[in-house]
Amino acid sequence: MIGGDAAGMSAASQARRLRGPDELEIVAFERGHFTSFSACGIPYWVGGDVDERDQLIARTPEEHRARDIDLRMRTEVTEIDVAGGRVRARDVDSGDESWTSYDKLVIATGARPIRPDMPGVDAPGVHGVQTLDDGQALIDSLTRTRGRRAVVVGAGYIGVEMAEALIKRGYEVTVVNRGSEPMSTLDPDMGRLVHEAMEGMGITMVDDAEVTKVHTGEDGRVRAVATEDAEYPADVVILGIGVRPETALAKAAGLPLGAHAGLLTDLSMRVRGHENIWAGGDCVEVLDLVSGQERHIALGTHANKHGQVIGTNVGGGYATFPGVVGTAVSKVCDLEIARTGLREKDARRAGLQFETVTIESTSRAGYYPNASPMTVKMLAERRTGRLLGVQIVGREGAGKRVDIAAVALTAGMTVEQMTALDLGYAPPFSPVWDPVLVAARKASTAVRQGS
Amino acid sequence: MIGGDAAGMSAASQARRLRGPDELEIVAFERGHFTSFSACGIPYWVGGDVDERDQLIARTPEEHRARDIDLRMRTEVTEIDVAGGRVRARDVDSGDESWTSYDKLVIATGARPIRPDMPGVDAPGVHGVQTLDDGQALIDSLTRTRGRRAVVVGAGYIGVEMAEALIKRGYEVTVVNRGSEPMSTLDPDMGRLVHEAMEGMGITMVDDAEVTKVHTGEDGRVRAVATEDAEYPADVVILGIGVRPETALAKAAGLPLGAHAGLLTDLSMRVRGHENIWAGGDCVEVLDLVSGQERHIALGTHANKHGQVIGTNVGGGYATFPGVVGTAVSKVCDLEIARTGLREKDARRAGLQFETVTIESTSRAGYYPNASPMTVKMLAERRTGRLLGVQIVGREGAGKRVDIAAVALTAGMTVEQMTALDLGYAPPFSPVWDPVLVAARKASTAVRQGS
Repeated sequence: MIGGDAAGMSAASQARRLRGPDELEIVAFERGHFTSFSACGIPYWVGGDVDERDQLIARTPEEHRARDIDLRMRTEVTEIDVAGGRVRARDVDSGDESWTSYDKLVIATGARPIRPDMPGVDAPGVHGVQTLDDGQALIDSLTRTRGRRAVVVGAGYIGVEMAEALIKRGYEVTVVNRGSEPMSTLDPDMGRLVHEAMEGMGITMVDDAEVTKVHTGEDGRVRAVATEDAEYPADVVILGIGVRPETALAKAAGLPLGAHAGLLTDLSMRVRGHENIWAGGDCVEVLDLVSGQERHIALGTHANKHGQVIGTNVGGGYATFPGVVGTAVSKVCDLEIARTGLREKDARRAGLQFETVTIESTSRAGYYPNASPMTVKMLAERRTGRLLGVQIVGREGAGKRVDIAAVALTAGMTVEQMTALDLGYAPPFSPVWDPVLVAARKASTAVRQGS
Repeated sequence: MIGGDAAGMSAASQARRLRGPDELEIVAFERGHFTSFSACGIPYWVGGDVDERDQLIARTPEEHRARDIDLRMRTEVTEIDVAGGRVRARDVDSGDESWTSYDKLVIATGARPIRPDMPGVDAPGVHGVQTLDDGQALIDSLTRTRGRRAVVVGAGYIGVEMAEALIKRGYEVTVVNRGSEPMSTLDPDMGRLVHEAMEGMGITMVDDAEVTKVHTGEDGRVRAVATEDAEYPADVVILGIGVRPETALAKAAGLPLGAHAGLLTDLSMRVRGHENIWAGGDCVEVLDLVSGQERHIALGTHANKHGQVIGTNVGGGYATFPGVVGTAVSKVCDLEIARTGLREKDARRAGLQFETVTIESTSRAGYYPNASPMTVKMLAERRTGRLLGVQIVGREGAGKRVDIAAVALTAGMTVEQMTALDLGYAPPFSPVWDPVLVAARKASTAVRQGS
């Protein structure tokens, strides 16, 4: 196993469940200090919702070793010799290198954050938030710094979650974003709702702006970030621009990569064309079941599923990962943001004709306390009425409603079929027509009238 | 339209949307004082979560009339003359009767609460909670009464919701229940969790007990209820035993009723064998898509869907209501209770071989604040692995997760297919494996091992 995080160690654990140490020797290489940690939890640790780093560690190296996994920490695999069936690994501290042979190989090298190539990006006070070490460095930096101005570069999931974390720590937060609206995984009209809500929380939103330089003070620490047009004072800067698959090793070994630089696998997470090599987690591309195209989505829940599937197959069973529909949910303070399936531009790119509807509803019966507004946007294919995608922006109770659409997408339902879905109803949980059904009704009407 | 509540008036409104008054004359008869009200909201009005009765009225008689619906309030239909295409209606106040002819008839007569035939059941202080008048009478009674002891008869949805309402009003609440556990729509093992949680709220739970008598004081008002074995002092008694379809009128007219005394319809909600008569809401039986059998489920969300479908068909369009999977969600204080599909006894009755699994998980990532425990039970058909049912008992965030299973049931998914569902994940919303997926994984393993 190359990589000791979600995908790699899930695979190791599952394989071990199926095959004892007499039947299967498992060696896992991890170049960092931690195994099986929740990177998704870092914003909540920084924001103070989670007290201690160790709460984010699902399983420690010792726990893995207690299950007869030969886990080699701080050991980086530097070469895969596919023909020879072996990997070369280097002890990060000593620099010693050695070869280890394998019958079966699992690549779970994850992703690495995109770090813009600009002056000052390596200055103290500029932080990424991918690893627990990153998180600790940021928390230390925030504790040391007296200033209270933070700039978040990027307005995707990490960007908005870090904006919340910094708000909770009492910072004045500016989010600088290259796109026309935050959350480019939504259509711009839905991103606009996020923009407005974040401004309502006192966050300064700068759209259509690329950070080109980090200015440092006399002490060498960040003091501002600059775009082409403006300068934003900053005592701390968070980079949340996104990640790329960490596949240099796989590429050098001649393994197949896709258009997004992720490893390409088959249904059982086997690397294409390689009988005894599997790959999963943030380093692979996954099939989008709605568009039929490969995508790169770095998300812990997929990594865990991949690991489970790989471990079953490595352990001699059979399991598959059919693909994704692109579901994601996030929040900034009390704003919940969710999406699944195709955006308008994805649908256009896929050559689909479609109808788009947007509705306003509430999370509970209108008369019930704390019924909060939500906006649901739905895309349906024009002639067939097939559901293509859903986006939701609202408050408490809005986000996880996207699961209804995620299952419907997986099942290939039409929006008309969705109008009859038997969803849970009681006044504290939903209006008598669930907001997703209200959207489905409107989409169904649009499809009928449009066809 | 016979009946001016959810099904009837939804049908009237939808038909009017499709056909103007020049094309379609719509007459609606309602024997009560209100139209289109939320009976499901009454417990929250009694409990004080909803301030005023009128908040529960979605649309008043005046609003319906403004849409050119000839709504005749306090007018009870006493006979349907199917052969003659006419109904006889009586003015409840004056007693005057007259015939009205129809080209198309919609029966939406609802359900009536089961009122046990026992001494004292009509005494002051004994209340049903089906109509707004019932709710007002109860609130008046609670306001007048000095005593603080309440007995709720029945531990289904209405029973547990009324228990919450009375707790909120500061009553000592006893729930007397005929079944072995509360919530007989769950399997007893899951009902047990509800029992324990309700006891934890200070509610006295009396299972396996049938109320046989209401004792009254010298003032004629209720003072206690008696079972075979015991007596429970009561200053107020709520009857929440369930409802039966209100189909005496339909039966007298020779229309087809099912085993549960509900009207039988086809896919378009037409009464079977009658080209120009539709029926919907609490007075009909619906097809259970999982068992293939007819059931009677009184639920506002179904009634609204029926009305929508009927209105479309009456208005000259075409719409269908395929059936239900039996989804329901409820809460008692902070306990959320949800179910969909078949219970063990339903599956046995349907002659199915099945596996049952139960898992414990949490509503959010374990390290995230307010991650609350939940129990998920899942039934899967033995050889096919087809999902048969899900029951959930937990706290905030538990209940609406049942929608995932409701959609999967509708789509006929297997539990193995469910393990790959792309559900929304982020630490504030879910563990990395959503509890429903954890159950699906365990069920999938059980199916593999069992087959």
